[in-house]
Amino acid sequence: MNQQPFSFRAARKTDLSAIVRLLADDDLGQSRENPTLPLAGAYLDAFQAIADDANQILAVATNPENAVIGTIQITLIPGISRRGAWRGQIEAVRVARDYRGSGLGQSMLEWAITQCRLKGCSLIQLTTDKSRPDAHRFYEKLGFEASHLGYKLNL
Amino acid sequence: MNQQPFSFRAARKTDLSAIVRLLADDDLGQSRENPTLPLAGAYLDAFQAIADDANQILAVATNPENAVIGTIQITLIPGISRRGAWRGQIEAVRVARDYRGSGLGQSMLEWAITQCRLKGCSLIQLTTDKSRPDAHRFYEKLGFEASHLGYKLNL
Repeated sequence: MNQQPFSFRAARKTDLSAIVRLLADDDLGQSRENPTLPLAGAYLDAFQAIADDANQILAVATNPENAVIGTIQITLIPGISRRGAWRGQIEAVRVARDYRGSGLGQSMLEWAITQCRLKGCSLIQLTTDKSRPDAHRFYEKLGFEASHLGYKLNL
Repeated sequence: MNQQPFSFRAARKTDLSAIVRLLADDDLGQSRENPTLPLAGAYLDAFQAIADDANQILAVATNPENAVIGTIQITLIPGISRRGAWRGQIEAVRVARDYRGSGLGQSMLEWAITQCRLKGCSLIQLTTDKSRPDAHRFYEKLGFEASHLGYKLNL
């Protein structure tokens, strides 16, 4: 008997429009995304590229009614540094508006951390925009340390 | 006729000991790496994992005598966010001690940016330790913006 209100699983192609809606329903994301149906082909291409890459885990959180209420992407990165350590990188974390403050975000991150452990990662990393103080508190509570600056360059 | 003093190419297995020496010859890297020969098996496993992943580019810089004088890793990350954008992520950038201040770092980053453009990335990202002010100036000069905080969690 699973008493947990949230479940996590690999995303299916039929989840894609829900994932894009989640990404768009966000202060920074609303100007970046286009959730209009049918979805732009670039979203479908991206889903396929993720599916084709064994080192990508695109996941969704669902509620007991099987609605998609959260999403997260984990990239498993092999590297020479730190004695050949694998690192797990977290991107594109979103929780549905109705579930913010419900503990879903924490459950989803704990699930992601477990996935990274199972894959042999010795480090997990992510960046958050400096303009998201709530996110900073959230990750610090989970044990993440803001030891780095995150640089971006738009091409 | 190539007038450039530096060349860049994909790393070969025979470059691995030179790459590990570069990673170790660094304030933060010296405690993290073990360049003792024969290299620890984890380094060889990591090299193979990178070679097996079509979305990884581990590269070296060489001088006209074909000595390895720099290294950089690019990870190509497909994602749903930003309308299905690919991002290039830079990790493990090192320049040999004798070549620091020579312009090699800038040439190597410009080469990496070109590789990301050729692969269709619309964003390049990297993190640098907050304790590396020289690196911050270096990336800002190249046009990178420190818009994010970089969080790490050791497992």
